Amino acid sequence: MGLIVAAAISGTPAWSAEPDSRRQRGEETLLKTTGAQGREVIDSLKRISPELGDWIVDFAYGDVFSNPGLPLCTRELATISALTALGNAQPQLKVHIEGALNVGCKPDEIIQVITQMAVYAGFPSALNGIAAAKEVFEKRRVGPAFSDPAQRRTPAG
Amino acid sequence: MGLIVAAAISGTPAWSAEPDSRRQRGEETLLKTTGAQGREVIDSLKRISPELGDWIVDFAYGDVFSNPGLPLCTRELATISALTALGNAQPQLKVHIEGALNVGCKPDEIIQVITQMAVYAGFPSALNGIAAAKEVFEKRRVGPAFSDPAQRRTPAG
Amino acid sequence: MGLIVAAAISGTPAWSAEPDSRRQRGEETLLKTTGAQGREVIDSLKRISPELGDWIVDFAYGDVFSNPGLPLCTRELATISALTALGNAQPQLKVHIEGALNVGCKPDEIIQVITQMAVYAGFPSALNGIAAAKEVFEKRRVGPAFSDPAQRRTPAG
Amino acid sequence: MGLIVAAAISGTPAWSAEPDSRRQRGEETLLKTTGAQGREVIDSLKRISPELGDWIVDFAYGDVFSNPGLPLCTRELATISALTALGNAQPQLKVHIEGALNVGCKPDEIIQVITQMAVYAGFPSALNGIAAAKEVFEKRRVGPAFSDPAQRRTPAG
Amino acid sequence: MGLIVAAAISGTPAWSAEPDSRRQRGEETLLKTTGAQGREVIDSLKRISPELGDWIVDFAYGDVFSNPGLPLCTRELATISALTALGNAQPQLKVHIEGALNVGCKPDEIIQVITQMAVYAGFPSALNGIAAAKEVFEKRRVGPAFSDPAQRRTPAG
Amino acid sequence: MGLIVAAAISGTPAWSAEPDSRRQRGEETLLKTTGAQGREVIDSLKRISPELGDWIVDFAYGDVFSNPGLPLCTRELATISALTALGNAQPQLKVHIEGALNVGCKPDEIIQVITQMAVYAGFPSALNGIAAAKEVFEKRRVGPAFSDPAQRRTPAG
Repeated sequence: MGLIVAAAISGTPAWSAEPDSRRQRGEETLLKTTGAQGREVIDSLKRISPELGDWIVDFAYGDVFSNPGLPLCTRELATISALTALGNAQPQLKVHIEGALNVGCKPDEIIQVITQMAVYAGFPSALNGIAAAKEVFEKRRVGPAFSDPAQRRTPAG
Repeated sequence: MGLIVAAAISGTPAWSAEPDSRRQRGEETLLKTTGAQGREVIDSLKRISPELGDWIVDFAYGDVFSNPGLPLCTRELATISALTALGNAQPQLKVHIEGALNVGCKPDEIIQVITQMAVYAGFPSALNGIAAAKEVFEKRRVGPAFSDPAQRRTPAG
Repeated sequence: MGLIVAAAISGTPAWSAEPDSRRQRGEETLLKTTGAQGREVIDSLKRISPELGDWIVDFAYGDVFSNPGLPLCTRELATISALTALGNAQPQLKVHIEGALNVGCKPDEIIQVITQMAVYAGFPSALNGIAAAKEVFEKRRVGPAFSDPAQRRTPAG
Repeated sequence: MGLIVAAAISGTPAWSAEPDSRRQRGEETLLKTTGAQGREVIDSLKRISPELGDWIVDFAYGDVFSNPGLPLCTRELATISALTALGNAQPQLKVHIEGALNVGCKPDEIIQVITQMAVYAGFPSALNGIAAAKEVFEKRRVGPAFSDPAQRRTPAG
Repeated sequence: MGLIVAAAISGTPAWSAEPDSRRQRGEETLLKTTGAQGREVIDSLKRISPELGDWIVDFAYGDVFSNPGLPLCTRELATISALTALGNAQPQLKVHIEGALNVGCKPDEIIQVITQMAVYAGFPSALNGIAAAKEVFEKRRVGPAFSDPAQRRTPAG
Repeated sequence: MGLIVAAAISGTPAWSAEPDSRRQRGEETLLKTTGAQGREVIDSLKRISPELGDWIVDFAYGDVFSNPGLPLCTRELATISALTALGNAQPQLKVHIEGALNVGCKPDEIIQVITQMAVYAGFPSALNGIAAAKEVFEKRRVGPAFSDPAQRRTPAG
């Protein structure tokens, strides 16, 4: 396609130049990172704002999260740090803590980025981030390596 | 010291239990990540709030950033994503973009976490984050891999 | 028009120059936009901070919201976009989504401003704004035009 | 195209179902709202993050701002109220105040949504929003209707 | 005291019940806290939004800041901590640091509330708050007690 | 006083120069301000992030809150105003409203700083702050002086 060629010339990575595959790539990355949970969020939007659901799949997951420029675990840690710092999106923070586990981040890494936010956004943000992690970890029966010798083989370990 | 023993028992990593070394460890990490720039910030605080300077060295760098639970590049990317999302701390964002380069993050990785914030904090935050990166990259004469064949060997590459 | 002439002379629109009518104008606009709900909020403040209640009626509704410089629906959409973007005031966001419906905004317009915030404040803010709208719409049995043929005659349609 | 048919069935407005036209539609809306200014922002991204520029044109302007569900002036007022409330994106706030004027909003309407933010995000946000408006209005030689009889024929008047 | 009796009866402190005096009380408190500076801000609003200027005098200063329920220094310290934490209103933060000095707060107290924000809103907010204080202190030739023996008699000391 | 002399020489108040006492001082101030509640928060962190708990005791309470440069009531009021303004940390806001009562702030003072935030962060923030205060006041059976003659002897009165 001419568009791909043009992209290669203009400096845009060729992978993002295939418009037909945004939806498919987004669906795949959404599934890989959020499992059934992301699909449920999208489906819940169907009767009120299907466009918002489409944008999440096509743009947020198809264009942004699927970009191979960063490993998925690093992307999830960056999202966790931002949502912990903002402190106004607890449901999404939990989704991304689960997403981080799904793509192979270790519980310890998640705790490190959340507690680091004490420095950059204050202790209340860090505490509420840890509360979200605690809830997800208990549901998933995972935890930091120190907490239980049996858990030292964490998902990504 | 009893404190170290207690820490080992209670589940706190022993490395953080040596109170005497907080200052030294903080100074080292501050130097490694920010070069002369961080020292200048601390020194500028001397006549107005030396305590804030102490806390930055001892707590932010000695306790938090020096924790070996995450590589320094991952810590800097987490800080960059949070400060881009918050959007109210441009001077510190620039310091940490430099810090990310200093500890071996690639310009492309920095750009990826900043642009990812378009999804989590909106396009204005991402645009202002990119403006900060542009300023730092120009000063440091680095850039994303696509921008110049000669720059494909980025600092960390 | 007398109003424009007076304004041109004093530099302040004549309508706001009658201090005695702030309370009455505020009460009327509060009732028009929030129905019984706004009154309940004010009443709940009586035993803890009656002044805050007075300021809401006299200043927020009497001085600001009653100003004829913008239609009430536009004011409510501006409030909805701001509260969606800030993301830290869900109870007030719901009150203003109801308020928007009360003054004749269509459900589709409300959804448009909320989803537009995905661009300016990120997807988590937009998703939490849509969750608030969903709750209000279900309670009020309204929805976007596409969702149900029978609802195509929305309140303002 | 099958996609358009599917969209009509699934409840997504047909206009957004033509993927090929996202770029074109985005470019048109970008030009209509921001004139040369938006193009300059996109161009400035070319050497550092062409993807962010693409997303602004294709997603922010092509998918969101071009949606006919709201008049462009209402969209600009919603953006102005959100950016005034957030208070961390002055350059973008100025671009959208200009955009509001470009698509026919009156100076008085812009002032009304900004000052309304005193109620929802506090006086400092409103004051900084008014400072942005003042700068844009002086550059464009427009102003509120009361300020100068000769300006009563505002752009949209 | 008549004030307490009236308040007990109506539920609103008597001092705020005299609508005619809002403007006068606001002007006095504005002058006492901000000197010429506040007046300049109000005057600068005259040609763009005189209403916003009126609300600042009548509501922010007449209703809120003039309330005798808190000493003016405590009010200024509360404003300084909030604006430092929000981090998006540097010009107003400087006005209130000056205001704090004008009503007798000591430089040390100002530094204490700003640096305390490192805990509640993160170090970048505290650092930018200290930068604002430094600018004001240098202009006013004041500083923390430790910085210069000759300054131990601070304005409020 | 020895304290002032030492500070003048080293530039750092002598009280903070004893690293061994950070933990003890922090524990004491934590107990004084939050009673059993703070200890419970710290304990709840033991199995997920004991370091965050240590930092709260040693840094937030030992270094910052214990600093004698401000009375504890003023520190709590500054924290309450900041958390009310940020609006994203309701659990911590309640802890500090209790803390303010514990260290002798009057209910009226707490209400004054929260309602003052209507001016600096908007009415939704002030309303949500008042809701937090209401919950705490009801649990503690205290209230503003006007609300009940029997409560005129408030804790600190």
